[in-house]
Amino acid sequence: MPFTGTLPGLSSDDSNQFESALKKFVDARELPLYKIMAYHLGWVDQNGEPEPAVVQDRSHGHLVLSVAKSTGSDNISAMPYAVAVEMLYNFLLVHEDVQNANTERNNRPTIWWSWGPAQAINAGDGIHAMARMSIFEQRNASGPAADPRNISMALEALDNATLEVCEGEYLDISYQERAAVSVDEIVTVARKHGALYGISAKLGGIASAVDDEVLDALYRFGNALGTAQNLNIDLKALWPDSGTERTEVQRGRLQSKKKSLATAHAIENGTPTTRRRLGEIFMKRVLDPADLDEVTSILAETESKVFAESRIQTLVDEAIETLSSAGLSADQQKTLIDSAKLIIG
Amino acid sequence: MPFTGTLPGLSSDDSNQFESALKKFVDARELPLYKIMAYHLGWVDQNGEPEPAVVQDRSHGHLVLSVAKSTGSDNISAMPYAVAVEMLYNFLLVHEDVQNANTERNNRPTIWWSWGPAQAINAGDGIHAMARMSIFEQRNASGPAADPRNISMALEALDNATLEVCEGEYLDISYQERAAVSVDEIVTVARKHGALYGISAKLGGIASAVDDEVLDALYRFGNALGTAQNLNIDLKALWPDSGTERTEVQRGRLQSKKKSLATAHAIENGTPTTRRRLGEIFMKRVLDPADLDEVTSILAETESKVFAESRIQTLVDEAIETLSSAGLSADQQKTLIDSAKLIIG
Repeated sequence: MPFTGTLPGLSSDDSNQFESALKKFVDARELPLYKIMAYHLGWVDQNGEPEPAVVQDRSHGHLVLSVAKSTGSDNISAMPYAVAVEMLYNFLLVHEDVQNANTERNNRPTIWWSWGPAQAINAGDGIHAMARMSIFEQRNASGPAADPRNISMALEALDNATLEVCEGEYLDISYQERAAVSVDEIVTVARKHGALYGISAKLGGIASAVDDEVLDALYRFGNALGTAQNLNIDLKALWPDSGTERTEVQRGRLQSKKKSLATAHAIENGTPTTRRRLGEIFMKRVLDPADLDEVTSILAETESKVFAESRIQTLVDEAIETLSSAGLSADQQKTLIDSAKLIIG
Repeated sequence: MPFTGTLPGLSSDDSNQFESALKKFVDARELPLYKIMAYHLGWVDQNGEPEPAVVQDRSHGHLVLSVAKSTGSDNISAMPYAVAVEMLYNFLLVHEDVQNANTERNNRPTIWWSWGPAQAINAGDGIHAMARMSIFEQRNASGPAADPRNISMALEALDNATLEVCEGEYLDISYQERAAVSVDEIVTVARKHGALYGISAKLGGIASAVDDEVLDALYRFGNALGTAQNLNIDLKALWPDSGTERTEVQRGRLQSKKKSLATAHAIENGTPTTRRRLGEIFMKRVLDPADLDEVTSILAETESKVFAESRIQTLVDEAIETLSSAGLSADQQKTLIDSAKLIIG
């Protein structure tokens, strides 16, 4: 399950400020199109009527604010960047729900399920276009955040990260139809998806106008944590935390034959019999629940869960290591590392 | 049929330069994801092998170059903007093909038809993210085009136009399920889609660093022509030019009950009998070819074709009128008006 709380470096006041800024940004627009977005973001029901806020993952926006705070900036300077990256993350979710035919997210019907795929693709495109708009407002701000060079760097970072996620998504989808996917290929895909947390951390640094070397360290910190989270999502889909059922989104990934670190490990390291059994399962068009049980029992034999856990731990170590070169105090580093661990899950 | 030639203000050399710049921009990237984009743009076949270039509509990019030339700039300054808007236009086409389930475009299978909807949504998202990247390169240029204020204005104009197109698309899709759609509502949707030609003209002016008043006139010129083109597309779908069959894209729009200026006119002005007949047709889930014949014969009775043609002519007049305040010579105005007429079709 994605982390839906407030990160250690932030107060509930910070978190509320962020939610208000995000909501104000969407609510400022009038058409029913924006009600669909507000529904997805958890503020209104399908009729556009306010409902008790649905608690959702806001860790991308929160990470921007937390890094900004750690590097000497404040919420005012960082907020437009936090809103931008949160919008980007959500445009990707809206499209992923169409791509994987997810009927539910956060225990509510997805946009495509409620309004059809055409409206969902369009709503996602709209969120994508809006993502940068909050940053243009920075031009009217004061201080380093309003520096045209910083604004331009932030905009470019957002587009580069988005394109990298699309590259990862291309590979992820194309691997669905292949049985032989290597551990390295899986990590490459996860690295590309990790670009989004990479820029979340970097944008926090841009808000504080830190120098390029620190920005680079922050990016690599966020990228390592995002990569770890991406790999962990698939691990938890295969082996949900005790006492929890697989969610719709988790089942969707497995049944559509998305590959994971653990399956790639088993494909690379299993006995010929193991590999043939996995191959037979992955030859089916769509997997059913019994197939998923079969896959996890094969992966238990190859000790692929342990392998995946250890590979993810390596990425956590990498995040800690890179952060140490970002010139932060020990306390600030600890706050961000604790945040990373919560995000990774 | 969209205009696929070279606009009057441009030489074949200009057109070749543009095509090379666009191709270089996509080819600079390595992954198979970019082969899918190159396929869509008409340069390679489905296996990524070069094939004789498929002639496609490049009128958005060409309009940028043509306006830049008219306002005193050159291809070097305008090219990144021309590439940007052409990419935006193409991301929208890729998604439209999924949304309308078009199997063919330019007489070739669409991306979703060849690689599935998930890859098509993702490829479109990638093109969307790339659209602005050519503009970031402007920072290293010289002259007014490299002015951070101009770059920032161009980026913001692109996102605003994209969001406006999404607003139009939302309405267009939601009108599919309604019988009662007014002429004003149809024109509003077309205006929103016209935003893309609006910024094409504006970006040409930004490349020449003209003042805000001229930029505004250029935007309104492009918007009027884009609005007229959008309305004319539906008119031609209902009544194809003599000697031509309906294309897959035209049929797709009609069968999915997209409303047009002519149908809205008939709904507003038809007799109770006419309206009831149209209502019965639009109550079907999907229309078949016989329904389309029935619709066009009803629209003949209500003289809705004549009405639509006259409304489109009003927009042509509007384009001519607004261009007259852009401070161009009579010759330059004539070139752009001739271009507009070719684009409108």
